[in-house]
Amino acid sequence: MCQVLVVGSVALDTVYTPYGKREEMPGGSGLYFSAAASLWAPVRVVGVVGEDFPTSALVPLRERGVDLSGLRVVPGRTFRWVGEYGEDPNLRRTLDTQLNVFQDFRPELSPPYRDTPFVFLANIDPELQLAVLEQVEGRKFVACDTMDFWIRGKRDALSEVLSRVDMAVLNEEEVRELSGRRNPVDAAEVVAGMGPRWVVVKRGEHGAVLFSDEGPFLLPAFPVRKVLDPTGAGDTFAGGTLGYLARAGTPSDRTLRRAMAYGTVLASFCVEGFGLEGLTGLTLEDVEERFRKFRKMLEF
Amino acid sequence: MCQVLVVGSVALDTVYTPYGKREEMPGGSGLYFSAAASLWAPVRVVGVVGEDFPTSALVPLRERGVDLSGLRVVPGRTFRWVGEYGEDPNLRRTLDTQLNVFQDFRPELSPPYRDTPFVFLANIDPELQLAVLEQVEGRKFVACDTMDFWIRGKRDALSEVLSRVDMAVLNEEEVRELSGRRNPVDAAEVVAGMGPRWVVVKRGEHGAVLFSDEGPFLLPAFPVRKVLDPTGAGDTFAGGTLGYLARAGTPSDRTLRRAMAYGTVLASFCVEGFGLEGLTGLTLEDVEERFRKFRKMLEF
Repeated sequence: MCQVLVVGSVALDTVYTPYGKREEMPGGSGLYFSAAASLWAPVRVVGVVGEDFPTSALVPLRERGVDLSGLRVVPGRTFRWVGEYGEDPNLRRTLDTQLNVFQDFRPELSPPYRDTPFVFLANIDPELQLAVLEQVEGRKFVACDTMDFWIRGKRDALSEVLSRVDMAVLNEEEVRELSGRRNPVDAAEVVAGMGPRWVVVKRGEHGAVLFSDEGPFLLPAFPVRKVLDPTGAGDTFAGGTLGYLARAGTPSDRTLRRAMAYGTVLASFCVEGFGLEGLTGLTLEDVEERFRKFRKMLEF
Repeated sequence: MCQVLVVGSVALDTVYTPYGKREEMPGGSGLYFSAAASLWAPVRVVGVVGEDFPTSALVPLRERGVDLSGLRVVPGRTFRWVGEYGEDPNLRRTLDTQLNVFQDFRPELSPPYRDTPFVFLANIDPELQLAVLEQVEGRKFVACDTMDFWIRGKRDALSEVLSRVDMAVLNEEEVRELSGRRNPVDAAEVVAGMGPRWVVVKRGEHGAVLFSDEGPFLLPAFPVRKVLDPTGAGDTFAGGTLGYLARAGTPSDRTLRRAMAYGTVLASFCVEGFGLEGLTGLTLEDVEERFRKFRKMLEF
């Protein structure tokens, strides 16, 4: 079993969904990823919060063995995000973003952190992604995410990141914007040409597709009756995928396919609750039970 | 092996896609369905065309054993449809519809036709669907399609159809509109409550889902690099599915799942050409080869 390091946001999220409104819930890619990956592997979090962050929210992660010593607490306010979802959980509208302490975030990794084999560069400034990448000298497998804002605004740094990672985990829109191609196969091929051996395209409630030299792998999403809050589903998927990969130790198409299936199952738990609710208290037994159900839904 | 009867439109389609424009190509649900289903079972077509229909277009179907004696040729012009697709093949815009001879279409089935075990009621006026249903006394398995126009305009007749069919094959929007529910699981459950034991939800390039008492079956679409013309993909999918079912003889969840996988493979061939091009000349060998590739894309 290998360790996993994630660098990403730790935030206070306010969300409006058709099922209700929740204010200032602990969230951010760093926490969603950790909550998922820690089911399979020891996770190290690199991030920053302000002094207003309710550290009690981190207890469930700590209990699951997440190492939070890389999460710095600095004077000021925590990163805040406000978003709204309509009837279609795949469509989200950002109402407000306050970077706050995240604005001056300059990750500096401690010696043990520099020796982590599995690394996830969540959606942050690609220059910060690069800074982390260079510090993790012991890396064996690196995956990254990004968003439209960086694709448009920091294309060169992002290209540099992509040329140095093993896997990109992006949503459909991002793959299109990055590649300039509409067709999913064409688009993934262009992104793969930028560096990553594996390109994972997230399609929300329509599942995910893996593109690699060994051909595409098509994975539907586990159907959920009530999508209470889609926030964090993509990072949870990535966390489940990398956590399972790290537990297996050696990434291959075969392992990655299975890892993605677990990631999808975890994402389905995530969206069934607001914020991190759906992942808190979740056991591997719960996950295995749903995984078996999922397999049955795919058999023919 | 059982026979399959389809009642549907036979049309001259003009389509605009990002790959080009084609005028007055032979098409319509009846022809797409037959071209697909006839790979596995003998098909009987019930429909109507005007005297301007190029009967040479029917030769490939006849060669594949399709019985076209139920296709009436009457004085007047054939049904015409003009449509446009943008970059997203799931979105289509109808520019013009001319019912012509289809307006007065009153299907009357000959005695052999009345004894067909498998029946597909393609997307036509639900009152006509009912008229056909009642004439096919030898029916063992009936599936139907419909569209928003009938859901809004002929709800009662459509409800009557649904209460008497074994399977509904609808797209996501139709299932939502029919059920008044946004969530796919909820929506399919409401439609199943209206009668059909099996509800198949078509999701275009995102695949299809089967809902039944035995739980959902999730099937991605076979990824196609160049969607030249999406017209007829849904009817081709239905044709492949019912053709395979009819060949197997006894419908069950197990057989239906496999049938849908073949239907999906056929739909992928359909969209690779304009009109019926992608299906013409297609052999079972071609289909089996792609089916094997498809299976590999789904393994984990």
